[in-house]
Amino acid sequence: MTSPSFQFVDAAIREAVGKQGFMKLVGAKIDELAPGRAVMSLERRDEVLQQHGFFHGGVIAFLVDNATTVAAGTLVDRAAGSSVLTAEYKLNFTAPARGQKIVCEASVLKPGKRMSVVEAKVYSHEDGEPKLCAVALATIAITEAKAG
Amino acid sequence: MTSPSFQFVDAAIREAVGKQGFMKLVGAKIDELAPGRAVMSLERRDEVLQQHGFFHGGVIAFLVDNATTVAAGTLVDRAAGSSVLTAEYKLNFTAPARGQKIVCEASVLKPGKRMSVVEAKVYSHEDGEPKLCAVALATIAITEAKAG
Amino acid sequence: MTSPSFQFVDAAIREAVGKQGFMKLVGAKIDELAPGRAVMSLERRDEVLQQHGFFHGGVIAFLVDNATTVAAGTLVDRAAGSSVLTAEYKLNFTAPARGQKIVCEASVLKPGKRMSVVEAKVYSHEDGEPKLCAVALATIAITEAKAG
Amino acid sequence: MTSPSFQFVDAAIREAVGKQGFMKLVGAKIDELAPGRAVMSLERRDEVLQQHGFFHGGVIAFLVDNATTVAAGTLVDRAAGSSVLTAEYKLNFTAPARGQKIVCEASVLKPGKRMSVVEAKVYSHEDGEPKLCAVALATIAITEAKAG
Repeated sequence: MTSPSFQFVDAAIREAVGKQGFMKLVGAKIDELAPGRAVMSLERRDEVLQQHGFFHGGVIAFLVDNATTVAAGTLVDRAAGSSVLTAEYKLNFTAPARGQKIVCEASVLKPGKRMSVVEAKVYSHEDGEPKLCAVALATIAITEAKAG
Repeated sequence: MTSPSFQFVDAAIREAVGKQGFMKLVGAKIDELAPGRAVMSLERRDEVLQQHGFFHGGVIAFLVDNATTVAAGTLVDRAAGSSVLTAEYKLNFTAPARGQKIVCEASVLKPGKRMSVVEAKVYSHEDGEPKLCAVALATIAITEAKAG
Repeated sequence: MTSPSFQFVDAAIREAVGKQGFMKLVGAKIDELAPGRAVMSLERRDEVLQQHGFFHGGVIAFLVDNATTVAAGTLVDRAAGSSVLTAEYKLNFTAPARGQKIVCEASVLKPGKRMSVVEAKVYSHEDGEPKLCAVALATIAITEAKAG
Repeated sequence: MTSPSFQFVDAAIREAVGKQGFMKLVGAKIDELAPGRAVMSLERRDEVLQQHGFFHGGVIAFLVDNATTVAAGTLVDRAAGSSVLTAEYKLNFTAPARGQKIVCEASVLKPGKRMSVVEAKVYSHEDGEPKLCAVALATIAITEAKAG
């Protein structure tokens, strides 16, 4: 059961992400939000692929970008005006994403007052089997004012 | 003046990138190709922004992904069947991309037989002034077979 | 029980690492080798610290460098002349390493013919308790000839 | 000519680095400090090499770690108690460091109030010729209190 205070966080995050034009264009969705964790996924369609029919690396990077930032965002004190801002990330592609769907799972490894360190794993679901297609490590800045 | 052999490379890259569904969806374009170098850009529109009206980090990552891979691709022997594959990259965001356009310039720092190291800088053009909004470092694998 | 073939790998790795002047200077040791995995550790002494009395970030990077490369090396076919070469890595520091000892655990996430992706976690042992002080993601090139 | 205020910064940095046990063990030295820039170097000797006679990757990482942090430190307000702390970095090795000396040049790409982004290039000097052997991108946290 989700605590009442996390319901507030959950709603605030979904509202913020819902305002991202790029999230809509790509067509990704939030599958799960929990303290320190975010899962996002995207179904295969031609518009998100590269020339060989795999999910485009840039699409995978977008999921990593959004999911790691949102995962860090689940732990900040939004009522006090804190917010999150992607500082940097690194991702390794481990296999072509040939599947029907990709799923990005992001988990906070180390929450901080000023920055949080988040890892992400992206799986390509082929015939129901998840296959690791990318791994990432991100630094998310925690901002105190309501700056972007 | 571009050499005849680079014209072949240029055409092959534009054809490959032209087949990327995601490139079309995002609406980015190739501004320049030269041996060891690629420049790509994207005009502002709501569909590529995040919730504060800046270019989405995932869009910037997509440009970095494509431009670094293409820059490495300008130096491989396509006639011999060599190809390029993004292995990994890291990017730092240095300022919000508030401009009318973002431009990603990628340059090969070290070409290799098996992998090339490429750097990229992304500029947000605000009222004609380029402002650095992201920097990246990428490793691009050179494949010998015609695999993707 | 370790298989006979891994005993050969184990001995070859320990011999190679034993020839590293820097490994001796730093005073690190190999705690564990297994297929796809390497653990290295280092005891606190003044020579490996920074100005505040924590293990130096460069010492932590050295452990990450060596342990990730060795972890990838446990899976290559040394009999066929294959070897490993550190291509790149990224590390995040998550807490000051104040402990009596640091331990770096490296695990291959994705072995490859041409490159392997390896993750590492570094723990600072304070009064027996391991505390995460760094995380890393590395790309290790697999070389076919006996080049360095 | 260096300004009087930078002389204070220069002295404070040299004092801090002079207290690093690991800096002494490795035997690196500061070649240059200027606002937004730091250069460090290290002469070849057996104790800093790996098994093939090249400078050890961990030594290169140590120079990157220290030089990027110090470069960011040249721009912080030490009089006000600000300090610097390495948050993360990524480095790519571009060639074996076979030379008599390695030199790491670090430059701040984007100074910030809370974090600065710094790039570094490491050159191996072979018979007087500098050859690029590593490139890096680092995030340095700016701390307000006198914490380490």
